[in-house]
Amino acid sequence: MANFGFSRLILSDPATYAFRGAERLAVKGEAVLERMAVAKDLPEALKDCVYAVGTTSRTQLKGRAALTPEQAVRRLAEESARGRVGLVLGGEQRGLSDEELAVCTDVLVIPTSEVQPSMNLAQAAAVLLYLCSREGAQQAVPAAPEPGARMGTLNALGGRMQQVLLSAQFLNPQAPEHVLHELERTLLRAQLTQREAELWLTAFKHLERAVKQGASTP
Amino acid sequence: MANFGFSRLILSDPATYAFRGAERLAVKGEAVLERMAVAKDLPEALKDCVYAVGTTSRTQLKGRAALTPEQAVRRLAEESARGRVGLVLGGEQRGLSDEELAVCTDVLVIPTSEVQPSMNLAQAAAVLLYLCSREGAQQAVPAAPEPGARMGTLNALGGRMQQVLLSAQFLNPQAPEHVLHELERTLLRAQLTQREAELWLTAFKHLERAVKQGASTP
Repeated sequence: MANFGFSRLILSDPATYAFRGAERLAVKGEAVLERMAVAKDLPEALKDCVYAVGTTSRTQLKGRAALTPEQAVRRLAEESARGRVGLVLGGEQRGLSDEELAVCTDVLVIPTSEVQPSMNLAQAAAVLLYLCSREGAQQAVPAAPEPGARMGTLNALGGRMQQVLLSAQFLNPQAPEHVLHELERTLLRAQLTQREAELWLTAFKHLERAVKQGASTP
Repeated sequence: MANFGFSRLILSDPATYAFRGAERLAVKGEAVLERMAVAKDLPEALKDCVYAVGTTSRTQLKGRAALTPEQAVRRLAEESARGRVGLVLGGEQRGLSDEELAVCTDVLVIPTSEVQPSMNLAQAAAVLLYLCSREGAQQAVPAAPEPGARMGTLNALGGRMQQVLLSAQFLNPQAPEHVLHELERTLLRAQLTQREAELWLTAFKHLERAVKQGASTP
């Protein structure tokens, strides 16, 4: 990160909290370590982001279309016009879980050899941050007129939608995610502004109240 | 290397010969380790190559024009039509020496932040090999009609030229390198075939004999 001028590191549910000694390993990376934050989970880590791309291996894709590193880096640059963006890397052993990948707006795969498809975490980060720094140096993306919707707001919206649409007996209580994710994805595709996302959230708060009242007055 | 399908690793004058245990660290990298070779110095390591690009930091450049990683990777692909090419990385502590950089046909610099310009060796390798694998996947370079001159032959030619041109009192015995390197560079620029390089070498062998005879019959 220090090599390529990135400074905002967030650890999501880290395996250790023993960060002493990290200064010695991270030569000239003090600025990164000083600003480092810890989040309880990935949605919390990404709550201020308007866009996030998760890194995964081919085997974890399960039909989801993956971006190439170059495409992902381009999208990160474009989306950064709307607000903060996140590049998400998984742990050394198992990478990102399916649940964590679902939180990411997009996924990317670094094309690797079939002999050894799994990359070392620091090396994957180096490849991607190098590409990011080159993309940033090549063309500045003009800032969007309005800030994009933060993932924290979108997550709150998703949660609220799930509750309301379950109450309204639209979603199947046994498996609500599939249809819900379809709806959520259309909103992601719309690249909502923060104001629009808040509007949706308020709308569903009103709907919730209305549905509850309807349920209590049969 | 295993991640991106590269298999020919040569260690030049390594700091250790204790390679036991490397198998455990290099997960699924056995194929690389099995083919790994050790050379006594960089000219020896590169003797079969027709082109080599060395990696360095900005501070070591000393006026030499550096390629960007993308330019270097393009050149590696182009030159690979003429024969084997080499990507040269220096040791973790001090990188490549000036002497070693002089052996390389070109030098490249990975653009990094001024805060922490020095990259971890494995991460620099990952960035460059990723770019190489992408370049290779994008466009195959048609093989040249004739194999290019190997650096071993070119080095032998350089050595022979130095001797002969010293004997002929063309080069300054106190500092022969500067003018010699200028001559050598023109031959590099010519992208000699192996046959042409051998022709030059034979020519200088003849010149050597002639100069000696001249010296012995004043």
